[in-house]
Amino acid sequence: MNDLTIRLTDTEGKCLYQQIYEHIRNEIRQGKLLAGEKLPSTRSLAEYLQVARSTVDFAYGQLTAEGYLEAKPCRGYFVSQVEDLFHLPEDKQGASASYEDAGFLGASFTENVSGTHLTSQRKETVQYDFSPHAISLKDFPYATWKKITKSILVDANSEMFALGDAQGDLGLRETIGRYLHSSRGVNCQPEQIIIGAGTDYLFMLLEKILGRHVPIAMEVPTYKRAYQVFQSFAYKIEAVPMDAYGMDIEKLRKSDARVAYIMPSHQYPTGVVMPIGRRMELLKWAREKEDRYLIEDDYDSEFRYKGKPIPSLQASDRDGRVIYMGTFSKSIAPAIRVGFMVLPLNLLKVYKENCGFYASTVSRIDQRILNEFIKDGYFERYLNKMRKTYRERHDFLLGKLGFFEKEFMISGENAGLHILLSSKSHIPERELLETALKNGIRLYGISDACMGKERNADTFFSSTVLLGYGALDKQELEAGIEALKKAWSLYL
Amino acid sequence: MNDLTIRLTDTEGKCLYQQIYEHIRNEIRQGKLLAGEKLPSTRSLAEYLQVARSTVDFAYGQLTAEGYLEAKPCRGYFVSQVEDLFHLPEDKQGASASYEDAGFLGASFTENVSGTHLTSQRKETVQYDFSPHAISLKDFPYATWKKITKSILVDANSEMFALGDAQGDLGLRETIGRYLHSSRGVNCQPEQIIIGAGTDYLFMLLEKILGRHVPIAMEVPTYKRAYQVFQSFAYKIEAVPMDAYGMDIEKLRKSDARVAYIMPSHQYPTGVVMPIGRRMELLKWAREKEDRYLIEDDYDSEFRYKGKPIPSLQASDRDGRVIYMGTFSKSIAPAIRVGFMVLPLNLLKVYKENCGFYASTVSRIDQRILNEFIKDGYFERYLNKMRKTYRERHDFLLGKLGFFEKEFMISGENAGLHILLSSKSHIPERELLETALKNGIRLYGISDACMGKERNADTFFSSTVLLGYGALDKQELEAGIEALKKAWSLYL
Repeated sequence: MNDLTIRLTDTEGKCLYQQIYEHIRNEIRQGKLLAGEKLPSTRSLAEYLQVARSTVDFAYGQLTAEGYLEAKPCRGYFVSQVEDLFHLPEDKQGASASYEDAGFLGASFTENVSGTHLTSQRKETVQYDFSPHAISLKDFPYATWKKITKSILVDANSEMFALGDAQGDLGLRETIGRYLHSSRGVNCQPEQIIIGAGTDYLFMLLEKILGRHVPIAMEVPTYKRAYQVFQSFAYKIEAVPMDAYGMDIEKLRKSDARVAYIMPSHQYPTGVVMPIGRRMELLKWAREKEDRYLIEDDYDSEFRYKGKPIPSLQASDRDGRVIYMGTFSKSIAPAIRVGFMVLPLNLLKVYKENCGFYASTVSRIDQRILNEFIKDGYFERYLNKMRKTYRERHDFLLGKLGFFEKEFMISGENAGLHILLSSKSHIPERELLETALKNGIRLYGISDACMGKERNADTFFSSTVLLGYGALDKQELEAGIEALKKAWSLYL
Repeated sequence: MNDLTIRLTDTEGKCLYQQIYEHIRNEIRQGKLLAGEKLPSTRSLAEYLQVARSTVDFAYGQLTAEGYLEAKPCRGYFVSQVEDLFHLPEDKQGASASYEDAGFLGASFTENVSGTHLTSQRKETVQYDFSPHAISLKDFPYATWKKITKSILVDANSEMFALGDAQGDLGLRETIGRYLHSSRGVNCQPEQIIIGAGTDYLFMLLEKILGRHVPIAMEVPTYKRAYQVFQSFAYKIEAVPMDAYGMDIEKLRKSDARVAYIMPSHQYPTGVVMPIGRRMELLKWAREKEDRYLIEDDYDSEFRYKGKPIPSLQASDRDGRVIYMGTFSKSIAPAIRVGFMVLPLNLLKVYKENCGFYASTVSRIDQRILNEFIKDGYFERYLNKMRKTYRERHDFLLGKLGFFEKEFMISGENAGLHILLSSKSHIPERELLETALKNGIRLYGISDACMGKERNADTFFSSTVLLGYGALDKQELEAGIEALKKAWSLYL
């Protein structure tokens, strides 16, 4: 029997059981107690240490449960054979030490990828940020949201804390279905709708449905985040040029694509609205082969300032070829983390087989709040208000841009939350962004929304910048544009 | 010029603009207006219909925006060339009609996969459901949760509705890191933690980090949902048998696996707690090759009724080989939809490169509520209460099982929310489940948690049932066990 010397103290704030447990564990870890050695009986150790026998029992029990000791009936406790214990330097805080070595601290990766802005080494002070992704949250009906939340929590019962339907609660799916039908002409049953925590997650589900290594057509330029996501799926991305009506159908036909990703209501970043003719051509292309599909990303169709909203592509689809995707990130708030996808029936079947077991990613309480917000008419009222707000900003900004028209072509107006300025004398995007940034104005380029060799093929894409106005009020827009006039005075 | 006859009515509740728009659109869709045809000028149509010219302007504008018409400067409006419009039967509700044909209505797929219970064709009335996945939600501190929600909403500002950090809000990650360190011995920086909407989603992220077609070792039997998820990833699943200490290390060595999925604190469904020796062997295995990893699913380690919780495997890892996964589904509520994953540093780097751009899947408000709930000590208090509740149920159930000991071996006790009954005379699982179900008792088998040929290799797995007690109080347990005695009287 090994001589076990345990110094028990009252000062370290550790209970006696803990001290005994840790001491023996450390002795084993450090190789001072060897495999097969017998430990003192609980009775004798308790007497020796002048503690209750149950304290020692408890420590031995824990060590046995963790596998350091082995209890042999009628014979007592023995040290277990533990592989490689000598590799465990007890006090080295391995993880935290090597963490700092790896140089991750302070690196803010997410910030770099969330927008497509110029990454400048110099730290410039940005006074006016024309982000095309930002929205106005000042007018969000916080009080209403709080009121609904409160009323839902009052009724909250255990059922609402249980796991809900994998596709999302039926009530919310019915509400979204009705909304999509009336506002976007989408034809679907609630059973075809899948609610998920954001578009990226829904894309991940879609990967499981469409399969791997899918050859997917994307417009040049396109929405960068979707491009990144599809790339991370090892999809084979077919870069298809755009004309004034959207994706070039002839070039699409020449590609190997079996799926096409498009934003027919308002293409990002060009702002092109796809006319019905091109839509029909795309639907025809999809119909020609068994497994061709169109992914319609309807990310900001709510905001159209001329005429009524353009109906969705899905509304014209009679053959189950359109996967319709929407989100409340723009129309309510990004932090809501609720998006939805409408699957055609044949893909719904695949979803149920391949991913029906994935648990829902949105909490039921959040689903209920959102459902009430839409059903009770608050959503529509808020949309109307924001449409008005954004239209005013849009009109105000356009009105201020006359000064730039000599050098810049203005496009992408009438919808969404940004417009485009394209230099007629082909001033490079980088120069435009940098001269603005030096004067405290952050603009956004589109060259990184272009893929591969298409990137510099067209001077339009290499000398165009985006001005987002979603998060800027009139005063800020006015001041920002004045500053831009100064910054670009040499061009104008 | 085509003769355009539009009948305008006041009765349909549609405004004049809408009626003109729809009429012309339908004429084009039905081929009555042909491509290239010129439309009447807005002035003449307005006069003819006796409406304001702006009404016609508006209708023509919308039709042009949607691509049905084309405006030629100084010449007027012409019908566009629209591909395949004749394929569009205007009133056929294609999607909804074919939906019912497809026979999905009423099919409740999620129910079938959420548990591993017997799927019986007969509809039996289940009076006692011993689900191993269900938890008690009666004692959830709803009032506290509501209070916190309310206080957070009072302070809610636009920042909280903006998109947060992709990995989850730093505050919550810090809180979870502290909790994991103190309760599970996990060594990590908040930067290593990724918060996501449930374990399934985190597995999906992990697929992007570990790559495709990963050969992954899983114990036989294992957690069925994880098995389904990994299968949907096209992972190559290597079924590795278990012994009394967990995954058989020799069999693991003989497999091609480069990742092993284990539940060392409390294996599902066997309830085995992996001793330190086996843990060290697994860590040694992982260390031997560059890209080997262990996925530690610590899904219910909070509930241990003997001794203190077993420290995590991650706590013994000094080489960055353990991916630690946890969830609040068991310890708070399934509907919370918050899980987390602790990545070793080299994988954190891969995460940032491959998936740093995926947006967070948990709303910031929910993150804030959870953070307060943990930070203010409510979580610990609730855990203590539930540990006591579950321990009482566990002890009570064990006490009632003496009667079964002649025929059944009892195992998997001391932790988690279920125990196992294994028939000594090898009564098949199916028979055990069916005789119970006929008497209104739903028990759960483990054979479908076994993969491939291992399924029937061991009689233990083919004649064992699970009794979950998480959602049953003492009275229900007592009545359920009495009913089971009757149901199984022929065996006892």
